[in-house]
Amino acid sequence: MSSILIKNAEIVTMNDKEEIIYGDLYIVNDRIAEIGPNLNREADKVIDATGKTVIPGFIQTHIHLCQTLFRGQADDLELLDWLKQKIWPLEASHDEESIYYSAMLGIGELLQSGTTTVVDMETVNHTEYAFQAIAQSGIRALAGKVMMDKGDEVPVPLREVTSKSIQESVDLLEKWHSYDNGRIQYAFCPRFVVSCTEELLKNVRDLSAGYNVRVHTHASENASEILLVEREYGMRNVVYLDSIGLANDRLILAHCVWLDEQEKKIIKERGVKVSHCPGSNLKLASGVAEVPSLLEQQAFVSLGADGAPCNNNLDMFNEMRLAAIIQKPVHGPTAMNAQTVFRMATIGGAKAVGMEDEIGSLEKGKKADLAILNLNDFHVYPSFDIDTISRIVYSATRADVETTIGNGNILMENRKLKTVDKDIVLKEANTSIKRLIKRLETVVY
Amino acid sequence: MSSILIKNAEIVTMNDKEEIIYGDLYIVNDRIAEIGPNLNREADKVIDATGKTVIPGFIQTHIHLCQTLFRGQADDLELLDWLKQKIWPLEASHDEESIYYSAMLGIGELLQSGTTTVVDMETVNHTEYAFQAIAQSGIRALAGKVMMDKGDEVPVPLREVTSKSIQESVDLLEKWHSYDNGRIQYAFCPRFVVSCTEELLKNVRDLSAGYNVRVHTHASENASEILLVEREYGMRNVVYLDSIGLANDRLILAHCVWLDEQEKKIIKERGVKVSHCPGSNLKLASGVAEVPSLLEQQAFVSLGADGAPCNNNLDMFNEMRLAAIIQKPVHGPTAMNAQTVFRMATIGGAKAVGMEDEIGSLEKGKKADLAILNLNDFHVYPSFDIDTISRIVYSATRADVETTIGNGNILMENRKLKTVDKDIVLKEANTSIKRLIKRLETVVY
Repeated sequence: MSSILIKNAEIVTMNDKEEIIYGDLYIVNDRIAEIGPNLNREADKVIDATGKTVIPGFIQTHIHLCQTLFRGQADDLELLDWLKQKIWPLEASHDEESIYYSAMLGIGELLQSGTTTVVDMETVNHTEYAFQAIAQSGIRALAGKVMMDKGDEVPVPLREVTSKSIQESVDLLEKWHSYDNGRIQYAFCPRFVVSCTEELLKNVRDLSAGYNVRVHTHASENASEILLVEREYGMRNVVYLDSIGLANDRLILAHCVWLDEQEKKIIKERGVKVSHCPGSNLKLASGVAEVPSLLEQQAFVSLGADGAPCNNNLDMFNEMRLAAIIQKPVHGPTAMNAQTVFRMATIGGAKAVGMEDEIGSLEKGKKADLAILNLNDFHVYPSFDIDTISRIVYSATRADVETTIGNGNILMENRKLKTVDKDIVLKEANTSIKRLIKRLETVVY
Repeated sequence: MSSILIKNAEIVTMNDKEEIIYGDLYIVNDRIAEIGPNLNREADKVIDATGKTVIPGFIQTHIHLCQTLFRGQADDLELLDWLKQKIWPLEASHDEESIYYSAMLGIGELLQSGTTTVVDMETVNHTEYAFQAIAQSGIRALAGKVMMDKGDEVPVPLREVTSKSIQESVDLLEKWHSYDNGRIQYAFCPRFVVSCTEELLKNVRDLSAGYNVRVHTHASENASEILLVEREYGMRNVVYLDSIGLANDRLILAHCVWLDEQEKKIIKERGVKVSHCPGSNLKLASGVAEVPSLLEQQAFVSLGADGAPCNNNLDMFNEMRLAAIIQKPVHGPTAMNAQTVFRMATIGGAKAVGMEDEIGSLEKGKKADLAILNLNDFHVYPSFDIDTISRIVYSATRADVETTIGNGNILMENRKLKTVDKDIVLKEANTSIKRLIKRLETVVY
């Protein structure tokens, strides 16, 4: 048994009443054993959090760890060009080591900025090595290899035979799903309708039901993508997904920038989870998702940074701030207030992954996934009479995260990562991307 | 004579060729004496910047230091409500000490995030104490008291008699303009057309010409504001300013969200300087300024964070990133690339304040205003084969600024501020806002 006592903190619980409690938080093994004033518990580790703020670890529901190495390689391009010219060739050139360090680079950034759970879509190959990085780092993840068995413009190393794509996914699932007492889960990741056959998608539907795991895909991010789907199937993206039975409460749909009313209705009625990615949607010139209307109809909406080359950070503070302010010019200044986006970043993410009883808030019995913030600096001051959630959403930054705890383990303490070796990962990240670019110069995909 | 040698750096010069040089930068007194490889100079202070990146200090052309204390007090309101319900009453309740600490709180944040020059609009009263903070802190500033001699809804302490407003402005100018060898300059600050009489504005026009100083005001931020001006004068905001001779190359116009073609033409032809404030414009639900079309016609556009209660940071990294990505959904992914916004944040700001021969780039003979960035961390990696400007604009954050030098003085070193006492300023910021809120409860404005 290991235990941690966090003392004298301001605790932003995000429980049903969204209470903020002043006191202690006691962790035994991987769970929160108690929260309250003056707990007076013996613990292996005591953290004095006087003047600090404890929040639930952020949950990002759309991430591509395999793309972290491509940060800055693909600026100022639109989605389909971005994929065809840059991201697909780079993904095709990945090897086992580069996948591992790409994941580690991303996880380092995520833990530094208070994210403790990700829904991660890898590339076609070498996903085993992403799982190894996830396993070693201590981050919580629902991850899977991407599936793509269609598309003439897809580089050869990414073009899959349907049955092989499914078999490899199932093999990874059998190996990694439920690893470390459920910290790692598998999610099926068909890339998007454009690059998947109906046969593949229907198989994924059945496997997701059979294994009771999430399906994580992209939809309605970009006008050209929607046109492609309409041309092929004669219907809108989400309508098509629904027509083949994929639109259900296990489906996580990234982006959903361009939904019509019928699609919104499907999302609501089927309990589909929307992952809103405001930074990526702006940088790829995709648009601004209609999040206020989705929230109004009580759809599930959470947040994700997407991949590093379309953001270019994996930083929930950026995404929260953007999610709030970009809606105001259209929907008015009270739209998307700080509370709303903080909810999306925490308990909203937990609902997206079906773990609202386990993570997303700080409550007795839940998993100990949290971040300790130090909000004692110029850019988050004054503190007197200011709503803490406003300070976190509108003023705080990644560097204000002092300590990150995931599954009861201290993953970063006083900004020093415990499970990810910064010097090695930064060095190997550069070595890896150099090798991939070299490979791209000699191989034509 | 004092001297600083910064060794082995990547130097982002922003000179005419926008060269990036690897080598040393030698500062004598307040100026850059030399830039180049292996300078081998003796210096009082040597900074080893191996693996670090030196950039020109950021220039923010629209800031309200007097509002820093109000951060978080006025979330989720539209401009005119925001002013009438929150900001004006709070400004009216300011005292000498609160003005001083509001400025110091803002300056601490600015220096921490690499901003070395601000164009600062204070409130009606106690501006002397903002100048004292600016003087002590070492930041470069064009500052002035706000002028407002019109408007029934303005709280009494902010309602000025025209002649007194002008006299106080001139008194401050006579005292502070050219202080510390030109580090501080005065700028006349009529608030906006809505709260200024034509008599005041015409006087400001003549004084600005006579003293050859900047005029700093707001225009066309918000639809209701524009309607008020049109109702009174029968013309658009910038057209009105032009009709009374204020639209000239000494005018800095904050916001300019809603310009028609005639106004854009005036801005271009008169050489008016536009201060684009993307964070504030989104948060106050004002809109997205048509910056790409202003840049296309080669208008002067620079960047500013505005005040803390409408942003809620004073962070050029936030503003650069926003300025780039918010235009892409409308103007396409190549609009507003990293180079364009970095130019706006540096040499563009220098042009706005008429100091392009003195600041805004790192060149021999210019003032030594700069920031040293440490871009060796997860969120800005890989570094191999990545454009440095992309890394700064799209990935870096305020906490990556390690050292800030203004006017040849080290103002922050290894993230420790030298001229602003963090403990005192944070404490007094809270004490001050507490006192102001108390005052608001007892006085009805």
